[in-house]
Amino acid sequence: MAEKKQMHLTAFMRPVSLHTGAWRYPGSYADANFNFAHLTSFIQKLEQAKFDAFFMADHLAVLNMPVEALKRSQTVTSFEPFTLLSALSVVTERIGLAATASTTYDEAYHIARRFASLDHLSNGRAGWNIVTTGNPESAKNFNLDEHVEHSERYKRAREFYDVVTGLWDSFADDAFIRDQESGIFMDPDKMHVLNHRGNELKVRGPLNVARPVQGWPVIVQAGQSEPGRQLAAETAEAVFCSPKNIQGAKELYEDIKSRATAAGRNRDHLKILPAAMIIVGDSVEDAQQKRLKLDSLVHYDSAIASLSIALGTDASGFDPDGPLPTELLETNASKTARESVLKLAAEEKLTVRQLAQRYGGYAGLAFVGTPESIADEMETWLKEGACDGYTCVFPYLPQGLNDVADRLVPELQRRGLFRKDYTGTTLREHLGLPRPENRFFPSKQTNGGAA
Amino acid sequence: MAEKKQMHLTAFMRPVSLHTGAWRYPGSYADANFNFAHLTSFIQKLEQAKFDAFFMADHLAVLNMPVEALKRSQTVTSFEPFTLLSALSVVTERIGLAATASTTYDEAYHIARRFASLDHLSNGRAGWNIVTTGNPESAKNFNLDEHVEHSERYKRAREFYDVVTGLWDSFADDAFIRDQESGIFMDPDKMHVLNHRGNELKVRGPLNVARPVQGWPVIVQAGQSEPGRQLAAETAEAVFCSPKNIQGAKELYEDIKSRATAAGRNRDHLKILPAAMIIVGDSVEDAQQKRLKLDSLVHYDSAIASLSIALGTDASGFDPDGPLPTELLETNASKTARESVLKLAAEEKLTVRQLAQRYGGYAGLAFVGTPESIADEMETWLKEGACDGYTCVFPYLPQGLNDVADRLVPELQRRGLFRKDYTGTTLREHLGLPRPENRFFPSKQTNGGAA
Repeated sequence: MAEKKQMHLTAFMRPVSLHTGAWRYPGSYADANFNFAHLTSFIQKLEQAKFDAFFMADHLAVLNMPVEALKRSQTVTSFEPFTLLSALSVVTERIGLAATASTTYDEAYHIARRFASLDHLSNGRAGWNIVTTGNPESAKNFNLDEHVEHSERYKRAREFYDVVTGLWDSFADDAFIRDQESGIFMDPDKMHVLNHRGNELKVRGPLNVARPVQGWPVIVQAGQSEPGRQLAAETAEAVFCSPKNIQGAKELYEDIKSRATAAGRNRDHLKILPAAMIIVGDSVEDAQQKRLKLDSLVHYDSAIASLSIALGTDASGFDPDGPLPTELLETNASKTARESVLKLAAEEKLTVRQLAQRYGGYAGLAFVGTPESIADEMETWLKEGACDGYTCVFPYLPQGLNDVADRLVPELQRRGLFRKDYTGTTLREHLGLPRPENRFFPSKQTNGGAA
Repeated sequence: MAEKKQMHLTAFMRPVSLHTGAWRYPGSYADANFNFAHLTSFIQKLEQAKFDAFFMADHLAVLNMPVEALKRSQTVTSFEPFTLLSALSVVTERIGLAATASTTYDEAYHIARRFASLDHLSNGRAGWNIVTTGNPESAKNFNLDEHVEHSERYKRAREFYDVVTGLWDSFADDAFIRDQESGIFMDPDKMHVLNHRGNELKVRGPLNVARPVQGWPVIVQAGQSEPGRQLAAETAEAVFCSPKNIQGAKELYEDIKSRATAAGRNRDHLKILPAAMIIVGDSVEDAQQKRLKLDSLVHYDSAIASLSIALGTDASGFDPDGPLPTELLETNASKTARESVLKLAAEEKLTVRQLAQRYGGYAGLAFVGTPESIADEMETWLKEGACDGYTCVFPYLPQGLNDVADRLVPELQRRGLFRKDYTGTTLREHLGLPRPENRFFPSKQTNGGAA
């Protein structure tokens, strides 16, 4: 009997929740933004449930919203994710740790160093979510008046990836000898000076961190725009995306996998993990009631502010009870977010108010039901080639997370779709990804295929 | 009876040791650069000894040295310090955590965010060592061909400090209400948008991290050059410096304290902590033998490479048995290091070889003797106004550190010069520093003086 295709599960986190009404939900930890004990309890619960990875979302600015929305937002401040994940590496042993870092507003040498360090600290559990930073407010915190243009950001991201991975390959895995007798600490023939001089970046190297435990931390990406898909196909090993339904997911899955093949990669070495908010109830109706209650906690001003960010234009002047104006300004805001809003509005014929409240809470794919009904949906998607697993979004914390860990995961395990225990120690091993060859110091034997 | 002036003790660390021969010393942890368990054991031992802070040194490049030196160096690679300290915050409760971050090759928004996060993670134990990055190789890792000129670096550092501290003041301490009933999470009247537009930096703000537990993480600085002293006097709360003897220490102490007074600051709110390597033996001769053994483990090629970096010129062609050539090129290398080498050579009439071997090991101030003789020296310096405590350098690890913690510290405690237990919880409290007022949201009552 052939083993069933296995599902990967990662957690897509903000300390209080991605859903903007969540901090008001009964029993939620409203103070989780700076409460390390709460975050420890979340990640340890996910590790007990054998999740592949814990991924912390990020912004490089206080999001631009009207003051009435700002004062109701739980997202204004929180731990910087990288600092947080370094600390969480100490209270966990197996679960992967993925953080976002921007190729637009940071330096390749810094990013290569920090992720390599996190990989060493965690014994091979680091993942780098490459983002180009779609929030136009960020530019103003980094010496610019205008946001960097979309295609320009992607050009830089591609070169940035080459530099960071090149820096990770600065040393052969066996470069450090540390022979106390002879006094030889390192074999200089096993050190490579990158000397990168490209269109966007000049970085000499070598990195002052030994090669990461995983060779390279796992490369993660989101983004569904044309350059986003292409960048993912060429570089990413785990992609989180936001299809609205199984048909859209299948198209996206095939498109990105085909692009990966066209780029000369093994399509199995790129895992596609749609983001889905999961709400578990005792019955389907019970779960739906929970969602309604949660959405009702989103204030309209916050909702319209989120919609404005996604559209890249101020939506607060639109008629709340009319449809979305058909002609919207072209902007440099993230195309993925913008297109997804326009699609949602068109498909479900939503008014501005409905769209805003839906979008202001959590607009993406949601699995809402019993452990069995949700497992059915997740199994169907997996079997029909719509995904390799899921990027799980929890509606409120801790209960929404506990429901997934305690009720849904055992059902997935019972069906043979998800591991009952970790079989490896690194994030690459959890995801079934090969350890990349060092491009400058290839091993004598082949390791069974390139990344 | 007036209480004796109390001494502050911080640990100035590299994972293997600052002394370049240390990795070969019997019993040393040669693999500590990427061994979190070893680093945990070091910091926990220092916390048991009630040290004020653990400070991790840093470089932004693999240091430029000839290959014969490079292959013998333990300093080529190690954990990135910030990542490391975030993790170490989890395995400690009281000791301060100070990391270096460069104002020349990083962004004010990133630095403000990370240190604020570390301060929240550690419940008020973070310190930021402001450096302008004196190593000319660093520029090449950050898109430049030439190093940024010395005075230019200090101009930027001064403005950078204003921006970072301004970002830390983005929110009043009581800005976050989190009233689940009314739905008000934050009071927008208690948020300040910095809108900084200076000569070097444009940063809008606000920071997306709540005000740090300490108000601001403690500001630390080294550097003894003219602009370095002035920057320290205007901004630093703890200064580590490298006087060669008590007379030099007194002059430096008075100079920096006077500059602080002239800048309108309380001179007690700036602690001057000379760096001293401490070697404890059963007798003075025993301790001296340990130092000789340690220095003998430094390879000449490594020594001459360190000397070259300090001088900012290649010293490998100099006659090893002659004196240092009198005319040396002006460079942009750190003036502090360069002047200290030239002084050492002149004072002790050392040959190039002697100078290199001394400098290549550890050239700074050293207290070498029994617990009693070292405590005598440390007490004299403290009483005579040469310092407020010490930045301790350990010759080799773990034994050199254990000797200080287990043998010297009890002697200092017995004399009433050093705490037997922590009385506060934050690094500011350990150092006797006030919590800074928020410049944008001053409290109604005075808190007893500005920082």
